[in-house]
Amino acid sequence: MSDETPRPLLSLAELDRFCRQAFLAVGADERTADAATRGMMHATELGVDSHGVRLLPHYLRALEGGRLNRTPQVRKTGGFGAVEVIDADHAQGAVGAFHGMDRAIALARQFGVGAVAVRNSSHFGPAGAYALAAARQGVIGMAFCNSDSLVRLHDGAARIHGTNPIAVGVPVAGEDPWLLDMATSAIPYNRVLLYRSLGIELPGGVASDAAGQDTRDAMQAEMLAPLGGEFGFKGAALAGVAEILGAVLTGMKLSFDIASMDGPDFSTPRQLGAFVLALNPDAFLDRGTFDAGMRRYLDMLRSSRALAGSRVMAPGDREWQVAAERRQAGVALDPATESAFAQIAARFGLPMPAATHG
Amino acid sequence: MSDETPRPLLSLAELDRFCRQAFLAVGADERTADAATRGMMHATELGVDSHGVRLLPHYLRALEGGRLNRTPQVRKTGGFGAVEVIDADHAQGAVGAFHGMDRAIALARQFGVGAVAVRNSSHFGPAGAYALAAARQGVIGMAFCNSDSLVRLHDGAARIHGTNPIAVGVPVAGEDPWLLDMATSAIPYNRVLLYRSLGIELPGGVASDAAGQDTRDAMQAEMLAPLGGEFGFKGAALAGVAEILGAVLTGMKLSFDIASMDGPDFSTPRQLGAFVLALNPDAFLDRGTFDAGMRRYLDMLRSSRALAGSRVMAPGDREWQVAAERRQAGVALDPATESAFAQIAARFGLPMPAATHG
Repeated sequence: MSDETPRPLLSLAELDRFCRQAFLAVGADERTADAATRGMMHATELGVDSHGVRLLPHYLRALEGGRLNRTPQVRKTGGFGAVEVIDADHAQGAVGAFHGMDRAIALARQFGVGAVAVRNSSHFGPAGAYALAAARQGVIGMAFCNSDSLVRLHDGAARIHGTNPIAVGVPVAGEDPWLLDMATSAIPYNRVLLYRSLGIELPGGVASDAAGQDTRDAMQAEMLAPLGGEFGFKGAALAGVAEILGAVLTGMKLSFDIASMDGPDFSTPRQLGAFVLALNPDAFLDRGTFDAGMRRYLDMLRSSRALAGSRVMAPGDREWQVAAERRQAGVALDPATESAFAQIAARFGLPMPAATHG
Repeated sequence: MSDETPRPLLSLAELDRFCRQAFLAVGADERTADAATRGMMHATELGVDSHGVRLLPHYLRALEGGRLNRTPQVRKTGGFGAVEVIDADHAQGAVGAFHGMDRAIALARQFGVGAVAVRNSSHFGPAGAYALAAARQGVIGMAFCNSDSLVRLHDGAARIHGTNPIAVGVPVAGEDPWLLDMATSAIPYNRVLLYRSLGIELPGGVASDAAGQDTRDAMQAEMLAPLGGEFGFKGAALAGVAEILGAVLTGMKLSFDIASMDGPDFSTPRQLGAFVLALNPDAFLDRGTFDAGMRRYLDMLRSSRALAGSRVMAPGDREWQVAAERRQAGVALDPATESAFAQIAARFGLPMPAATHG
């Protein structure tokens, strides 16, 4: 809050360039640099800054520490029919997730549906990036994973689930995909950290103290509440779906067994799983009917009556709006990330990401 | 409220017998009688009374009116690989949904995953019945459908989605499956009707008046709110997942195009879709590892610290507890259903369901 000067707006292309160079500078291979950068840039472009380029210093540390493998040999180790099991060889999480979705898409083209379990992976960042990768190629994509425990159960007083995201992307002819990318907690943990630093109150029903009691004091917040408030058993069960698909079905660690993302151990692989699934509309009906169905659904939804003073949006609409703005105007880094980027630039002799024109 | 006498507890087997006989009495074929009864009895057994045997008179009326086909010719009409498209020929909804899940399970045994779109179906009752059918056979099952509009969008002031359920069932070695069966609204519409009849206030954030404003007055409730309260965009998007899979991918009617379940038209098929998916754990990892993962997950979950005065449960735990009680003690019908059953019994010369012993 001490920094009152407006922060420069950096171009997305320059942020992308900087991330790739930084990954290569710590010895990550081209594939890792590409996938990790695409994952973060998806989030930065769409306004999901918690999973955007602010994670670059984190991933560099994990790659240099050995938690993440800089030169992973990703390979198929199991599955049959329309299922594959992929061992990501402790790659940065986007490597296995993008590869897994590529394979799920290929399986869906052949079998109508494809499901891929990714083993020995790590934090994969924005689940929506992988669902979107499918939707961009004309198929419905879904992505699930678990993560280290932060979220209590309904009526619980202990951290059990991670924020366990669920993402679904659906192709829409002639426009950006329908895109859901949700944590199964009400809010992400970063919101708690942000409210702590801002000194403001949390909404009710989103965080609990160490006894599991609802608290609006961000300093007292020890765990997150599952989505749904008094119907939080639904949010907790949705977290369970991500847990079962992302961890049990992949044979990887359950949320409460995963080492903290923030360390102190940055040398041991965390053994996270991920699960992706693709559905090929062409296996179900002709593409024109599918496209017309999505068109009518979205047209009716967007033109439907809104609460006074509000507007209704389809999943992804807000994100595509942010993306259009950021592609045009660029994006400001938060102070901590800007400082970390300056250190990375100095250490590896990289030019800082340039500001947008004008 | 005028009826103060304790209602007799009827045995589940007798309710099952009565429903089957009633379906056959209106000319439904054996398959319809079996599937429709199994669907309702799933709900009655597990305590989901809104989708239980209280629907018998409704289904009989729809079968006699012609909305539902008493002798449907269910057949495969499309799909390839691990996908099938089933035309349910306007059968009662459980017919196509159980058949679709049977096919998805068979596909999952062959291909590791199977997905089935059901066309020309109707109200399928409890989504959990179909997910459970898969889990009982050792595979993960998912079921989705849409239904006539009752639920507003986040910041919306119009009925757009149905209560669009999502169900997931997961096999657990040595015990009943993990079972999620949720409406994507905070509460079912039946809750509003119940609170109207009881004259009590709704919880906040679950229903809205005609302007989309939150209301706790059940008489003013014109629409339901999506799950999530101020994070209702997540609930609305989950409803969208059920809408896209259940209606767009099946080429069937969107929620706002579906004729009301309650009539007045009981002669025209409603053209609902349903979508089911099965995942075979054996395609992903060895069964022992899968079973051990579910075991550890559930053990940790159930033994985790609860909020003072509460207990934590896994999805399905409450339902299995009700089921055990009802298998033992039987179940009471609500007065309206008891009266309807008496009329059905008189009309077709059927013995009323017998009470449990003692």
